[in-house]
Amino acid sequence: MTMQPFRTAALSIAALVGLSLPVLAADGLAPRDEPAKTLPVPDTVSPELQAVIAQPLHDGWNTPPTTPDGWRDLAAKLEAGLGPQVAPMAERLRVDIRPDTIDGVKVYRVTPRDLPPANAHRLLVHVHGGCYVLNPRLAALPEAVMMAGIARMPVIAVDYRMPPEAYFPAALDDAETVYKAAIATVPPANVGVFGSSAGGALTLETVLRAKRDALPMPGAIAPGTPMSDATKRGDSFRTNALVDNVLVSPDGFCHAATLFYAQGHDLADPMLSPVYGDLHGFPPTMLTTGTRDLLLSNTVRVQQKLHEAGVEADLQVFEGMAHAQFYRDDRIPEDRLAFEQLAGFFDRHLGR
Amino acid sequence: MTMQPFRTAALSIAALVGLSLPVLAADGLAPRDEPAKTLPVPDTVSPELQAVIAQPLHDGWNTPPTTPDGWRDLAAKLEAGLGPQVAPMAERLRVDIRPDTIDGVKVYRVTPRDLPPANAHRLLVHVHGGCYVLNPRLAALPEAVMMAGIARMPVIAVDYRMPPEAYFPAALDDAETVYKAAIATVPPANVGVFGSSAGGALTLETVLRAKRDALPMPGAIAPGTPMSDATKRGDSFRTNALVDNVLVSPDGFCHAATLFYAQGHDLADPMLSPVYGDLHGFPPTMLTTGTRDLLLSNTVRVQQKLHEAGVEADLQVFEGMAHAQFYRDDRIPEDRLAFEQLAGFFDRHLGR
Repeated sequence: MTMQPFRTAALSIAALVGLSLPVLAADGLAPRDEPAKTLPVPDTVSPELQAVIAQPLHDGWNTPPTTPDGWRDLAAKLEAGLGPQVAPMAERLRVDIRPDTIDGVKVYRVTPRDLPPANAHRLLVHVHGGCYVLNPRLAALPEAVMMAGIARMPVIAVDYRMPPEAYFPAALDDAETVYKAAIATVPPANVGVFGSSAGGALTLETVLRAKRDALPMPGAIAPGTPMSDATKRGDSFRTNALVDNVLVSPDGFCHAATLFYAQGHDLADPMLSPVYGDLHGFPPTMLTTGTRDLLLSNTVRVQQKLHEAGVEADLQVFEGMAHAQFYRDDRIPEDRLAFEQLAGFFDRHLGR
Repeated sequence: MTMQPFRTAALSIAALVGLSLPVLAADGLAPRDEPAKTLPVPDTVSPELQAVIAQPLHDGWNTPPTTPDGWRDLAAKLEAGLGPQVAPMAERLRVDIRPDTIDGVKVYRVTPRDLPPANAHRLLVHVHGGCYVLNPRLAALPEAVMMAGIARMPVIAVDYRMPPEAYFPAALDDAETVYKAAIATVPPANVGVFGSSAGGALTLETVLRAKRDALPMPGAIAPGTPMSDATKRGDSFRTNALVDNVLVSPDGFCHAATLFYAQGHDLADPMLSPVYGDLHGFPPTMLTTGTRDLLLSNTVRVQQKLHEAGVEADLQVFEGMAHAQFYRDDRIPEDRLAFEQLAGFFDRHLGR
C-alpha cells in the first residue's frame, strides 16, 4: 500500500527455532522472525472444508518408512482407507470405472455415463499423486472420478509402476506411453493431461518428455499443486511448515518417498523438478493450490516460469486449503468449484 | 497427496501466542499451533525482489496516528519519500504526466509517449492504494505510471479526496465520477479499472456502484490485492501476520486508517468490504497477490466469489511477495512481469 525506498538490510544470523529446516537465506539478507501462533480454523470457508482444515497434522508425517516393505505397507494401508471411497463417489458422479492395459501400462478408463457428444472425441490423461510411491490401484482414482464426473469428459487414469516395483523414471515412462496412445486415438489438441502433487509434477514432466521426443503438445494441462521442485527450494516450504496438515514439512514423509523413487538421481533434474525445465511451447496450463499449501510457492513459481515463457497459465488458489485438499471429496463445495473451473478450462482449450 | 477420511476434530482452546489478534475459530474446531520460525529471504526470486523481502517490518506499523493532523502528517511524510521517485520512473517508461480535473475531481492523465493506434480509444481508470488515507498527489502514481508505460495505454489516475478532508464514501464518489466520464469518452467496453490495496477495493466498489446505478460495465478490471474485507476475516490475516513486512498485522496502521475513513460506518458494507457484494455480472477480472501477502486470503476469496458468480477471474501470485510489492519498482523483474501480464489481460479483454 505504501512504497518505500530500498533500505540496506541489517545482516542477521538465520536460525530456525522449533524446526530443523535447512536455512537457504539469500546471502547476507536478514531473515524474518515469525512468532509462534495459534491459527483458528477460518470462518471464511464452508463447514465441510473447515472439517478438513481442522484435521490434525498427518499421522506419521515425520516417521516415514525406512525399508521397501515399509513403503509397500504404508501404500497398502492408505489404499485400504481410500479405495472403498471410490465406488460411492463414482456412483454420486455417475461415472463408470473399467480397468484396462495400454501398451503394457495398467490404467483405469473412467467414463461419464452421460457423455455429451461434444466431449466424445476428447480425452484426459490423469496421473495420480502420492509422492511417487503411494496411491496405487483404486487409490489413484478420486481425482480422476471427480474430473470425469464434473467435466463429463472421458479420463484414462494411469496406474503407473511405483517403488519398490520400479524406480525413476518408470512412472514417467508409463505416463508417456499412455500419452502417446492418447494422441494416437484422438487429435493431440483434443487431449488434456492432469494430476496433482507428484501427479502435477508428472504432468509437467510428461510435457517436457513430449517436447524432448518431438511429440505433439496436448491441447491443455492442469497440474494441481505440483511437486515442481524436489530440492526443497520455495518460500512456502518454510512459511507453511507445520501449517499444512497434509505434507506438514519439507523434511517429512513426502521428501523421503521422493528420495526412495529417485534412487540417487539428481533431484534438480527437470524430470524430478520440472520448475527447472524449459517451459517454452507448453500448452495453456491451469494450476490449483491453497493458501496453507506447503507447495504454494512451487505452484506459483511454475506460473511465473510459464508467464516468462509466454504461456497462458491460469491459477486458482483456495482459502485455507493445505496440500491437494481440493480433490478430497466431491461433497465439499470448494472442491466442486475447483473442478467446475478445471472443467471450464479444458472445455475452452481442448479441440473437439 | 493422500486422501484421509474426515476425523472428529479434538476440541481445543484457541489461544494466540505472541499476537493479540481476535480468535475467530469455527465453532469447536481445533486450531493449528504453529511454532516460531525464522524465515530466510527466499533464494527463488530475483536479487532486486530479495532486497524488498529483506526490508524490516514497516516502521510504525503498530503506532498509527491518533489525530487527523497525525494522519495528514504521515501522508505528507510518505509522499515526500515516494513523490520524487515518480518522475524518474515516468522517464524510464516514457510516460507523460499531466494534472487535470474531471467534473470537480482531481486526476492525473498518465499517457505513453508512443501510444499505439490500437490503444488510442482505450482508457484505464486508476484508483490508488494507501488504506483510504495515504498516497495523495504524486504518491498516487507509481502503479499508474507502470501500467501506462508497460501496457502502453492511456491512464487517468484518480487523486480522490481523503481524510481528514473528506470521509467515506468520498473516495468512491470520486472514482465513480471519473468512471462515468471515462465511459462517456470511449465505449464502456474499452474502459478498464484498476488499482491495488484500498485501490483494489475501490475498483471492486466502483463496479458495485456502477451496477447499483445501472451504468454499463467496464470491459475488464484488475484489482490488485484488494482490501476486500475490512472486518478482518480471512485466514492469511493470521498465517501471514508478522510475515508480511508491509501491512504486518490486521491490527496495524492500515486498519486504523480504514476506521478513520469509515467514521463508524458498518465495515461489512460491500462499499467497504466488497467481498460481501453481489459480484454477478462483473466483467473479466485479474487479481494479483504474493505468497507473504497479509491479504492473500482476501484476494483469493474474491476469485472464489467471482467464480461462483460465473465471472472469469484470473489470478497471479508472486513468490515471497508481501502486500502490494508488485508495483514497487519497474526495475524489479517480477514487478515488470506482473504488469506485462496485466497488460496482456487488458489487451485481450478491452474493446478497441
